Amino acid sequence: MATVHRQKLDFQGKSGQTKILIGEGVLAGAAQEMADWLSGRRLFVVTTRYLWDLHGSALQSVLRSAVDPVELFVADGEAAKAVEVAHRLWDEMLAAGGKRDSRLLTFGGGTVGDVGGFVAGGFLRGIEYTQVPTTLLAQVDAALGGKTGVDLEGGKNTVGLFHHPAWVLSDTSLLATLPSAELRSGLVEVVKMAALLDPPLLERVEESLDALLAGDAAVLAPVIAAAAAAKAGVVERDEREGDLRRVLNFGHTLGHAIEGVLAYEGLRHGEAVAYGMLFALRLAERRALVAPEAGKRLRVLLRRFELPALPELSPEALYGFMTRDKKATEGGIAWVLPASPADRPFGGFEIAGGVGREEVMEELPAFLASPFAPSVKV
Amino acid sequence: MATVHRQKLDFQGKSGQTKILIGEGVLAGAAQEMADWLSGRRLFVVTTRYLWDLHGSALQSVLRSAVDPVELFVADGEAAKAVEVAHRLWDEMLAAGGKRDSRLLTFGGGTVGDVGGFVAGGFLRGIEYTQVPTTLLAQVDAALGGKTGVDLEGGKNTVGLFHHPAWVLSDTSLLATLPSAELRSGLVEVVKMAALLDPPLLERVEESLDALLAGDAAVLAPVIAAAAAAKAGVVERDEREGDLRRVLNFGHTLGHAIEGVLAYEGLRHGEAVAYGMLFALRLAERRALVAPEAGKRLRVLLRRFELPALPELSPEALYGFMTRDKKATEGGIAWVLPASPADRPFGGFEIAGGVGREEVMEELPAFLASPFAPSVKV
Repeated sequence: MATVHRQKLDFQGKSGQTKILIGEGVLAGAAQEMADWLSGRRLFVVTTRYLWDLHGSALQSVLRSAVDPVELFVADGEAAKAVEVAHRLWDEMLAAGGKRDSRLLTFGGGTVGDVGGFVAGGFLRGIEYTQVPTTLLAQVDAALGGKTGVDLEGGKNTVGLFHHPAWVLSDTSLLATLPSAELRSGLVEVVKMAALLDPPLLERVEESLDALLAGDAAVLAPVIAAAAAAKAGVVERDEREGDLRRVLNFGHTLGHAIEGVLAYEGLRHGEAVAYGMLFALRLAERRALVAPEAGKRLRVLLRRFELPALPELSPEALYGFMTRDKKATEGGIAWVLPASPADRPFGGFEIAGGVGREEVMEELPAFLASPFAPSVKV
Repeated sequence: MATVHRQKLDFQGKSGQTKILIGEGVLAGAAQEMADWLSGRRLFVVTTRYLWDLHGSALQSVLRSAVDPVELFVADGEAAKAVEVAHRLWDEMLAAGGKRDSRLLTFGGGTVGDVGGFVAGGFLRGIEYTQVPTTLLAQVDAALGGKTGVDLEGGKNTVGLFHHPAWVLSDTSLLATLPSAELRSGLVEVVKMAALLDPPLLERVEESLDALLAGDAAVLAPVIAAAAAAKAGVVERDEREGDLRRVLNFGHTLGHAIEGVLAYEGLRHGEAVAYGMLFALRLAERRALVAPEAGKRLRVLLRRFELPALPELSPEALYGFMTRDKKATEGGIAWVLPASPADRPFGGFEIAGGVGREEVMEELPAFLASPFAPSVKV
């Protein structure tokens, strides 16, 4: 059986077009397709030393086509997403002769893409850039949609801007070296989009979860392409945070709070989001938004992810964090809840703005004690 | 004679609309016009302690309409435009409970507007803001057009983004306390736009320069309105740095280099730009782009500005700075040169991309020795 799944998506945003290539080995041929974008330009590559040593050679054809590529190294993980790091990269780019028509390429996971995109967006008021996501999470989610940013001490992604990449190159052969917990974390975002937007994709994940969690590239490639298409479709129709784009925040209201209260240690992003989806499901059940089958299937599927246990967390601390989240407005928190359409369990959602503190606090302690249990009102 | 000149301009950009109010006392009534934008929102005011003590009371009606306004102080002058300052303001805004629908208002000159606009553009990926420029330079130029930014050690405005304000409130009564050198610096930008875009405005400046330099509010208000309209018109047709918007860069290629080599000390921005225009005029004369009358009139007008003398400057250092300017591309420096249309001395320009190093270096030492002399080739 041929294992190559190669797909090209075009994202047409208000501020330009993003060309998206997904599949095994897409980096090898990318330089030809990107010739106009690359040739004769100085290229800055934002990456980590670990990734550069491990996979940098996959970028050789791209690097050869650019002028004097300059590597800019950042730390692994969330430490890269700091204003000070962006400041250092800007200084380095200016010192290396970076110009308005220079190019930047991010080569790494979500944190590298976030800080690299922010640096591209702010350098000389914006230079064009390419995202080369090297994790499943980044390939299905973080690299798409134009969100860039860094963290403040008081919260994650609290500084940033919308800056759409000119290219996204998702080479699934880079995923072979990912730890299985990273694959799991990325698959949670696939489940998030599939449950609300693409029921056939959810069924595909249910059927092939074991192969996906094992990193089978042939099974992963079409799933990544479908999830990327779902996300790009949402973003295309709603570039800023209107109601439609909010659907992507399913599981993220509590998920971000869990990450924040844990100071981004102990759980991966996707793991926290999985718990966030389970909690949103409770709120949806209280409000009779979802068919019983949907709750059951989502819990069964997420149990198979074998998430690390939820550490002990204070409901008050979590609630305080949620009200400070950047997606909260002066009017309160807007929850994204799954909602079953009349004829099927998945494929719908509701943005619930009127969920009060009491309602959340009635569910939260019970949820923390038993995350896979249904709403206390069911 | 009534001295009130009140004008309302609307700027329609790709990313939204800017409402511009210009005239004496426009701040007093602004809160009513801005009611929808302001009421029920938390407001952050970026300003300096000096301006706040001097003119803060002019903002009272605006502040009363917002929720718990929070003042954010920055230093006077270029020191405010630093990544570290933006970082501090972001931290303060987050700690004060800033949300995505919070508002920001800049109250100050160009540096306050630049850093404040950048902070608004980056906070939670962008919140809406208002510019209240308190200097002539900011009222005719800096506050309009959506450019925001801070400096790196290696160059001015090297980090930033395009973020159009929702409102610009130019209250000409704030200009009464400006030092005359500040008025002169602002009027240079008026001359810049008038010479290339609005010959009747240039004539008005020639006729009333003494009153303008003396800060006569009645004479200033319509001049500010005309210059603001010229700039808004250019930006509206060309939001990013295309060929049309480049016209605004007349005098800025050498002007920025002079400021940079002097480490932004000794000359004000407008003073450096005035010298930059005189130099661009030489390049235009070499290429026979301008009618002799235009060169003569521009020199006569700028002599009347009684600019501080140009300090001793190295041509090599200036040239090096120009090639590192963010407006330079990998292809070299694009000079904005005045060009006389067939039937009149002013009102035209040319973007000259092919001005070589030899050409510039043939003029530059002679210019530095005698800035008001014509081209060595004339």
